[in-house]
Amino acid sequence: MPQGRTEVVPDDGLTTAQRRHLPLIMVNTGDGKGKSTAAFGMAMRAWNQGWRVGVFQFVKSAKWRIGEQTVFEQLAVLHERDGVGGPVEWHKMGAGWSWSRRPGTEDDHARDAAEGWAEVKRRLAQERHDLYVLDEFTYPMEWGWVDVDDVVTTLRERPGRQYVMVTGRRAHPALVEAADLVTEMVKVKHQMDRGQKGQRGIEW
Amino acid sequence: MPQGRTEVVPDDGLTTAQRRHLPLIMVNTGDGKGKSTAAFGMAMRAWNQGWRVGVFQFVKSAKWRIGEQTVFEQLAVLHERDGVGGPVEWHKMGAGWSWSRRPGTEDDHARDAAEGWAEVKRRLAQERHDLYVLDEFTYPMEWGWVDVDDVVTTLRERPGRQYVMVTGRRAHPALVEAADLVTEMVKVKHQMDRGQKGQRGIEW
Repeated sequence: MPQGRTEVVPDDGLTTAQRRHLPLIMVNTGDGKGKSTAAFGMAMRAWNQGWRVGVFQFVKSAKWRIGEQTVFEQLAVLHERDGVGGPVEWHKMGAGWSWSRRPGTEDDHARDAAEGWAEVKRRLAQERHDLYVLDEFTYPMEWGWVDVDDVVTTLRERPGRQYVMVTGRRAHPALVEAADLVTEMVKVKHQMDRGQKGQRGIEW
Repeated sequence: MPQGRTEVVPDDGLTTAQRRHLPLIMVNTGDGKGKSTAAFGMAMRAWNQGWRVGVFQFVKSAKWRIGEQTVFEQLAVLHERDGVGGPVEWHKMGAGWSWSRRPGTEDDHARDAAEGWAEVKRRLAQERHDLYVLDEFTYPMEWGWVDVDDVVTTLRERPGRQYVMVTGRRAHPALVEAADLVTEMVKVKHQMDRGQKGQRGIEW
């Protein structure tokens, strides 16, 4: 845990209190495990503070349901039923984009990703969420499915107090430059190296 | 995400299915963020699979309550009330060790840590949990509050199918050697570098 002391005091005309509340652009990148897992862990923490959480999964197939989705649906129920935590929305690329007018197809991932980003952009303009998890969004950026300049400009210029967490390998340098908090997950050792495969409860 | 292919097929006499189900020792280390957050994210996933989750916080003050604890208490309620997910126990060093006969003091962290480890050891022998999160347990190991050889031997020889996740900076080499999955979280950039301090919902 970083301690509460800062290394530099910037000359930006803000008080410490003002600076403390600047909303963040965050990136979890690298080839190791834990990028998405830590992002969902942060979303859990945000939920607990009553934040409006929006999760947008950009690459996983809509048929692939991860445990976190089930958990956040339960948390959303708790919010609605018992008034604890915040509201949660969970959207998946493809059939999962609930605002898409057509059924998703497996074939047109590029179009799906562009639609997903367009929706995130609308929501940022409307200040719909307090925390956006753009899971595996580095790949649509890498593959040219969304425009990197558009993404970076939109994130930099987003209104209000909206936090954004982007996950995925090989984060674009322009995204890293725009981000406030960037962590690289580095694989030191993995059980697959000794012939183990993915396991329920651990990998999904 | 690692793909499903393995890099080597070990000559250990196990089938792929047997090997797939070997329980893991996992370590999240490094100076970056996300070590504990990813561990709690994994615990959330395990909960969703119905696993019995035990969280043991080894360093945070018992007075310091993190959002994840509240969330897991809610998940434990969901399990008891609606039968979803698995049971959750959350224990904190100091006053929080529920098996401790005396009230915790701020002064005797070494004894608290040793007591906590002794309890984890008993639980491992009894196969009480499916996933143990030993949060910030690298520090008691580093500071000599627990015996490194004892920890490593106990973890290596634990019975049944019990998963263990250890978090914290500077994981001991013997722990890394014993572990199946080790990830290093590396700080690329942090908002504190430009004078921001910790924020509610992000840091806790």
